[in-house]
Amino acid sequence: AVPLTVDYLYLLVVIYVSLTAACILSYNILGMNFFDALNHAFTTVSTGGYSTHDASFGHFDNLALEATATIFMFSAAIPFILYVHLLQKGRFEFFKDEQFKGFLFIAIWASIIISISLILLPEKFSFTHLIPIIFSVVSVMTTTGYVVVDYQNWGLLALGIFFFLTYFGGCAGSTAGGLKIFRLLILFRVIALQLKKLIYPKGVFSVCFNNKNVKIDQVMSIMAFFFLYVLTNVVVAILLSFTGVDFLTALSGAATAVANVGPGLGDTIGPSGNFAPLSDFAKWTLSVGMLAGRLEILTILLLFVPHVWRN
Amino acid sequence: AVPLTVDYLYLLVVIYVSLTAACILSYNILGMNFFDALNHAFTTVSTGGYSTHDASFGHFDNLALEATATIFMFSAAIPFILYVHLLQKGRFEFFKDEQFKGFLFIAIWASIIISISLILLPEKFSFTHLIPIIFSVVSVMTTTGYVVVDYQNWGLLALGIFFFLTYFGGCAGSTAGGLKIFRLLILFRVIALQLKKLIYPKGVFSVCFNNKNVKIDQVMSIMAFFFLYVLTNVVVAILLSFTGVDFLTALSGAATAVANVGPGLGDTIGPSGNFAPLSDFAKWTLSVGMLAGRLEILTILLLFVPHVWRN
Repeated sequence: AVPLTVDYLYLLVVIYVSLTAACILSYNILGMNFFDALNHAFTTVSTGGYSTHDASFGHFDNLALEATATIFMFSAAIPFILYVHLLQKGRFEFFKDEQFKGFLFIAIWASIIISISLILLPEKFSFTHLIPIIFSVVSVMTTTGYVVVDYQNWGLLALGIFFFLTYFGGCAGSTAGGLKIFRLLILFRVIALQLKKLIYPKGVFSVCFNNKNVKIDQVMSIMAFFFLYVLTNVVVAILLSFTGVDFLTALSGAATAVANVGPGLGDTIGPSGNFAPLSDFAKWTLSVGMLAGRLEILTILLLFVPHVWRN
Repeated sequence: AVPLTVDYLYLLVVIYVSLTAACILSYNILGMNFFDALNHAFTTVSTGGYSTHDASFGHFDNLALEATATIFMFSAAIPFILYVHLLQKGRFEFFKDEQFKGFLFIAIWASIIISISLILLPEKFSFTHLIPIIFSVVSVMTTTGYVVVDYQNWGLLALGIFFFLTYFGGCAGSTAGGLKIFRLLILFRVIALQLKKLIYPKGVFSVCFNNKNVKIDQVMSIMAFFFLYVLTNVVVAILLSFTGVDFLTALSGAATAVANVGPGLGDTIGPSGNFAPLSDFAKWTLSVGMLAGRLEILTILLLFVPHVWRN
């Protein structure tokens, strides 16, 4: 729906370069050397998540850097069209955008619930945890995957929340991967619609998003994508179980690969581990899962339709 | 779509009573005393799964009984309309029914994959395992939940397969619960339809089931149900994590409750455990999950719409 004019593409480049430059500068000022600042800014704004250090972002052990990274990861995972409108028309429409609001809503509530669950484990909580909590939630949701702390030590509720956050992903029209917030919002609205239909069997209802009607075809393709996304996760998880990894590693490994996040859960691939100990077969499986997730699966499936090759 | 005539209801009762009677008789002949045969037949044909023994069906340690129970569980989880047609019109249409074929297909492949994975662990496999494997697959898929062996000892691949089988459930129009095979089939067809649309953007396609067009409204409601089903599982699993149970217990507990199966996975609620050690809050959560799953969720959600109470 976005017009792919030269103007628009030019603005996208300006926005992306500006975000990256601002990120390099901020990291550098707050204590990273220029090399680290450059590398981390590149993988923050792309929500890629590579670090030059084995301990990932945790290497710097600096709350100001973590807060800054949180802001830039978030900025890179919201719809870029919002920046375009800001620059082109001077309109700040962020809080009118349902995807932006949905993302913020989930990130805030996930952080609050994790904080509360930590407060209930008094020996574990201190206010210095707040930034690492928000950092970790945003890192997983934006599919960046930086790690500052092993959040598996925050108890089983936090583990469960991080597991499900892995699936969500950022906003469509940003650099983030995953299921995407707009799809989640549409899926919730379809349920509301089903309820309305049960109450008013003769009513005619439609799904709205950002004050526009969503065509039934689009709704169908979003729902089909959700099933396909879950299915891809199931297949990857079963193939991983086949290599002898435990249940948590299989399920969270599939989730983190397909959503392009980075860290999984469990002792091996968790926030303080890595994927090196897995077998070659597991790595091939995860590689295909990452590709399929990034290309939104249908594109990959198309390659297996003989007809596509004939033309 | 099934005409609810007195004739039809009468036939349903005849079928249900006949299946139960045949099951009582078979169990009795094969070695159960009459009391056990009666009780187990009642919970086999209803795919309920209660046993009069703590060791569930494993108490009898009798392969002939296990094979018989497999047949009756299966018979109770396929569409009853097939029996009606057999009695009413003398037509044996079982292998023309896509749901029947889909169920058989999944049950056979799950059994084959689990058998192969056991053969690959040579110390664990013997041919006497074949009946317990098929029994366990059918017990979980039909949402009966009888246990004859702790299939968690069959390796991580089997564990993963039993985990996902828990969601599937039996056929619609039978006594089984869960997601139901016809919904899974429709979901797969929607994906095929999406692929066709990508290849022929101007084509007009529809989803067929048992050689009939499925209306777009029905397809929508099935896809919405799938999302709602997953969502219910997520909510129940997060609430369970909150009570301090581990990841496997939370996820498989939610799955087994919502699908009305019975055994979960893990040390506590696995096939050789039970739900007694869980906290009261966990039991309330699972109870609501069981109700929601059995009533197909939307019915439960309706209760929370104020408008419904006003009329």
